[in-house]
Amino acid sequence: MTDINLANNLWVVICALLIFSMPVSVGLLEIGELGKRYSRSLLKTLLIIGCALFVMAIIGFNIAFAPTTGGLIGNPLYGPGLFLGGFSSNATGMLNGVWWSTGPSYFATDLSTGTYFLFEAASAAVTLALVGVVVLRKMKLEAFLAYSVVYFVVIWTLPAAWIWNPTGWLYQMGVRDFAGGLLVHAAAGAAGLAIVYRIWREEKRKGLKASTVVPVDVNPTWLALAMILLWVGWFGFNPGSVLAMNSSATTVVLTTFLSGATCLLSVAFFRRVVLKGSPDLLYASNGILMGLIVITPMAGFVSPAGAIVIGVIAGPLYLAAERWFLKQRWFTDPVSLFPAHFVGGVFGLMMIAFFTQSAFAGASGNSNLPSGLLFGGGTAALNQLGLEALATVVVLAAVFAMTYVALEVIARAMGGITTDYEKEQID
Amino acid sequence: MTDINLANNLWVVICALLIFSMPVSVGLLEIGELGKRYSRSLLKTLLIIGCALFVMAIIGFNIAFAPTTGGLIGNPLYGPGLFLGGFSSNATGMLNGVWWSTGPSYFATDLSTGTYFLFEAASAAVTLALVGVVVLRKMKLEAFLAYSVVYFVVIWTLPAAWIWNPTGWLYQMGVRDFAGGLLVHAAAGAAGLAIVYRIWREEKRKGLKASTVVPVDVNPTWLALAMILLWVGWFGFNPGSVLAMNSSATTVVLTTFLSGATCLLSVAFFRRVVLKGSPDLLYASNGILMGLIVITPMAGFVSPAGAIVIGVIAGPLYLAAERWFLKQRWFTDPVSLFPAHFVGGVFGLMMIAFFTQSAFAGASGNSNLPSGLLFGGGTAALNQLGLEALATVVVLAAVFAMTYVALEVIARAMGGITTDYEKEQID
Amino acid sequence: MTDINLANNLWVVICALLIFSMPVSVGLLEIGELGKRYSRSLLKTLLIIGCALFVMAIIGFNIAFAPTTGGLIGNPLYGPGLFLGGFSSNATGMLNGVWWSTGPSYFATDLSTGTYFLFEAASAAVTLALVGVVVLRKMKLEAFLAYSVVYFVVIWTLPAAWIWNPTGWLYQMGVRDFAGGLLVHAAAGAAGLAIVYRIWREEKRKGLKASTVVPVDVNPTWLALAMILLWVGWFGFNPGSVLAMNSSATTVVLTTFLSGATCLLSVAFFRRVVLKGSPDLLYASNGILMGLIVITPMAGFVSPAGAIVIGVIAGPLYLAAERWFLKQRWFTDPVSLFPAHFVGGVFGLMMIAFFTQSAFAGASGNSNLPSGLLFGGGTAALNQLGLEALATVVVLAAVFAMTYVALEVIARAMGGITTDYEKEQID
Repeated sequence: MTDINLANNLWVVICALLIFSMPVSVGLLEIGELGKRYSRSLLKTLLIIGCALFVMAIIGFNIAFAPTTGGLIGNPLYGPGLFLGGFSSNATGMLNGVWWSTGPSYFATDLSTGTYFLFEAASAAVTLALVGVVVLRKMKLEAFLAYSVVYFVVIWTLPAAWIWNPTGWLYQMGVRDFAGGLLVHAAAGAAGLAIVYRIWREEKRKGLKASTVVPVDVNPTWLALAMILLWVGWFGFNPGSVLAMNSSATTVVLTTFLSGATCLLSVAFFRRVVLKGSPDLLYASNGILMGLIVITPMAGFVSPAGAIVIGVIAGPLYLAAERWFLKQRWFTDPVSLFPAHFVGGVFGLMMIAFFTQSAFAGASGNSNLPSGLLFGGGTAALNQLGLEALATVVVLAAVFAMTYVALEVIARAMGGITTDYEKEQID
Repeated sequence: MTDINLANNLWVVICALLIFSMPVSVGLLEIGELGKRYSRSLLKTLLIIGCALFVMAIIGFNIAFAPTTGGLIGNPLYGPGLFLGGFSSNATGMLNGVWWSTGPSYFATDLSTGTYFLFEAASAAVTLALVGVVVLRKMKLEAFLAYSVVYFVVIWTLPAAWIWNPTGWLYQMGVRDFAGGLLVHAAAGAAGLAIVYRIWREEKRKGLKASTVVPVDVNPTWLALAMILLWVGWFGFNPGSVLAMNSSATTVVLTTFLSGATCLLSVAFFRRVVLKGSPDLLYASNGILMGLIVITPMAGFVSPAGAIVIGVIAGPLYLAAERWFLKQRWFTDPVSLFPAHFVGGVFGLMMIAFFTQSAFAGASGNSNLPSGLLFGGGTAALNQLGLEALATVVVLAAVFAMTYVALEVIARAMGGITTDYEKEQID
Repeated sequence: MTDINLANNLWVVICALLIFSMPVSVGLLEIGELGKRYSRSLLKTLLIIGCALFVMAIIGFNIAFAPTTGGLIGNPLYGPGLFLGGFSSNATGMLNGVWWSTGPSYFATDLSTGTYFLFEAASAAVTLALVGVVVLRKMKLEAFLAYSVVYFVVIWTLPAAWIWNPTGWLYQMGVRDFAGGLLVHAAAGAAGLAIVYRIWREEKRKGLKASTVVPVDVNPTWLALAMILLWVGWFGFNPGSVLAMNSSATTVVLTTFLSGATCLLSVAFFRRVVLKGSPDLLYASNGILMGLIVITPMAGFVSPAGAIVIGVIAGPLYLAAERWFLKQRWFTDPVSLFPAHFVGGVFGLMMIAFFTQSAFAGASGNSNLPSGLLFGGGTAALNQLGLEALATVVVLAAVFAMTYVALEVIARAMGGITTDYEKEQID
């Protein structure tokens, strides 16, 4: 009946399940940082999960991962076709054989459709959950839901087709983004930026001089629970992104966890010693997140010692970025989408060209990736830096533009995307 | 030392662990829907877990899964015997060989006793946790605990021996219930019905005209946490029920998750567009649960597209059932045991005869199951429908009767099973 | 690329992840038992995790698990060397070959460094989290953090080198401690004792006649959540300690879960019937914990029936120990470090010499361990009892002494380790 690789499927489907739990954890993170007044975020994250599975199953999964036309867009009718193979029991990767993009000619990890779909649909869901932290109580839930559908049809899927699909044009050029520094974290930042910009345009029209500020109001138990759930979820995100069970997968456990731990200590240290602040639960949490974000795009390319160095650097980077973004008055970002995910994602992606060691990259299935500048990569590494920068510009511009256009259409249909949350009856 | 199948054991024991966490998640669901006043439910669910493991180990596991006498009851002294093999290190399935009911002559999945016991004992525990949502603050904890012992000796185990034990009389006739639409969800409903009927008899004697109503009082954070824990737990329930790691197991991930996601959207849509209500967190949660319940008895028999269709149908079914049950005045069911688990479980079981595709059923180890009416099953499918209906009547009647008799005995011994929760000192 | 055993690595790395979540669960346990006033415990547990991963990666892991000098201390520069192999991609157990202490010449389970490191670093973290439950709001966070660094360099690692490292002097003598009855639970008690003694010295100097009492203030939802997370985490702790996926690993699932379940019922029964108390959530939780603790040092050595007997005995033992410790006035232990972890850990270790069945011990990789006195072990069992007693005295004395000296140094540097929590501004 089956040609799938059991160890690889066991590994990746369990990792997929961990990722699947992350959107709700992001909802709990919002409440942990902003208080129970923001509990409607939980409905938002459940709806995101429902939309992600449904829309990705119908069309999104194929747009991202089926063979592409010109490297630009996957064939929505390919192989299993719409509805993940519909009623067919002969669909590739379902009961017979393996799903194409991971088949022998590409990554050769022999994952089944069930495994690979849950992994990628869950990743898409958590990306939109990150975008959603800027929604707060400012945006209509219906407007966000309409945006979600567009998001899982094209906004998440097209950049994925370009970089994670082995027939994508950026992948073919040599761009690599291990577990989504660009495609998840920075892209979430770009979409969030378009949302806060659109919100600001409506707030300005109402006569506001600065965007309504949402104060941080830490709820320690929910924040701590969200943090450990997210950290555990990241085990799915990064080690799972090897898409196979092998020694590289367990090495990615090391690089991921060491960067998170080190950045926690780095943020606490710099905040205490340099800024004379208190290393409280909020900064500890953001330190962990920053460390995990920064390592995400290169977790499979670097050594454990490399991950520790990255974690140390990420600490002051976060504190500086947070300070810079706090000065902006036209948007509100109390859950740190921009200083953590946006800045951390882009920074991590650039560091690929510095910290990569080709032996580690090869082991995780990226044998074409050259070593970084710090490990004798020379001009090949400089070339990689250029590629990653190109990908960053292209993807962030595309995500921002598609989001803005979608919001514009939705705003016209619904009479604006914002709502006066003080007058709302709904929690 | 070992003859067990490592991939199958890895898969099923991890799924078993996920199911093991579900009773407490049901306790948190009660609090998420009814408020912290119901926190004694948490003690109840911990005691259920303790009882399930202890009683099933001593005798219940063999009554359900050892070779049966006449297809009716497993031999309590078989093989490993009482206490899961007692002090013997040669017990089948312990360190040597495989546990009989999954051995070469039956399902051939080569699970060890440790794996299979945890899987089934956890399933039994979560079934009683579902029953327990009607207990509220109305029933004495001691009475429920006494009932629990009876439950794990005969009430859960006998129907399991009939349908899940390959020597059971209903299994031999051809009845199939993939992961427990009947044996878990509908059976929980039947037991719950006997409990609310017995409570009503005592309430009537106290002069009440209608059962004391417990208002819904949503606690968003605990409700959302319970939901994600239950959804993750269902990954254990359904995909784990293949009892093996293969491509069918990963396909069941698809059918299960797509039905849950689709029904969430279906409930939200119908509630908003048809009923003009608000798609709030409570309905989103119940939508997910309904989708997961309905797919449970057939998750291994249907295609992904079949699961999506099922999820769409389940939405309005839940809304209609909820409305109907709300009109009844002689019982109180604020956590939706009847409209979700009872109705959804029975409906899902019947749908086996409509949506089954034999290729999927065969892959999950049920090669004798004919395709459903929608897939050319014809008279074989009609015959299957009759079998499932017969099993439903037999199991629900048996569970209701055994529960009612047990409660009658307990009530006589303890002077009634109800208690005046308003005067209680204990939380 | 790889020589690792996939099934064993899959099993152990997933178990490691479960253990990794436990320190925060211990933090939630503190809040579940003491109320939200103690939410600073959550910052403490996150810092413990960060320190554990960072310090163990730099030096602690090698001190515990690299080949020892004279059986006393691992070579900090061995093999992968500092920083888990630093920037080397040829480090043993990283991408090539297997980590030494589990290699062919020793346990032969072929774990990679990533897998084994996460397993042991997480175990170290949870041990310190247990120590930390006596810190309450009495000890300066900085002082505890300084102690944490010392802890992961020598206090946790040296005893581990003696007993869990196959070249350690106590291991070579024949001492066995399956998953840490001594090295985790009792050792946490010894370190906690040194901390409360040091706190008491400072409290006495302030003129107190008895240590400031912290009342129990149960928060049911967080307590129940912490309990289920800890129980699930224990699945990592005990079954994972086989360090392999085989039938013994699944048998350890049985022994562990049956002891926890039985002790829950035992505590509830003795408290209700003998002490005429209420079997409330707090006692249910402590019953589960006691059962899990007591079985920890011997989970891989005993039969399921043995585990049930142990669980029954552990119940009254806990109730008696709790009563005894409550009478002491010079320290405060509201989360039961001493009656549960200290007493339960030592008791469980001694019971190795009574309940071990050599067939089970051999299957879990401990073929030199003789059967216990109850299973015909005779003089070999008596000898084992002596060995375990020796190890207990040596390890507890060493942990107490190292902790006390470390605190003395820290107290001098920081002007005492205690703080007046009533006047604190920080939560």
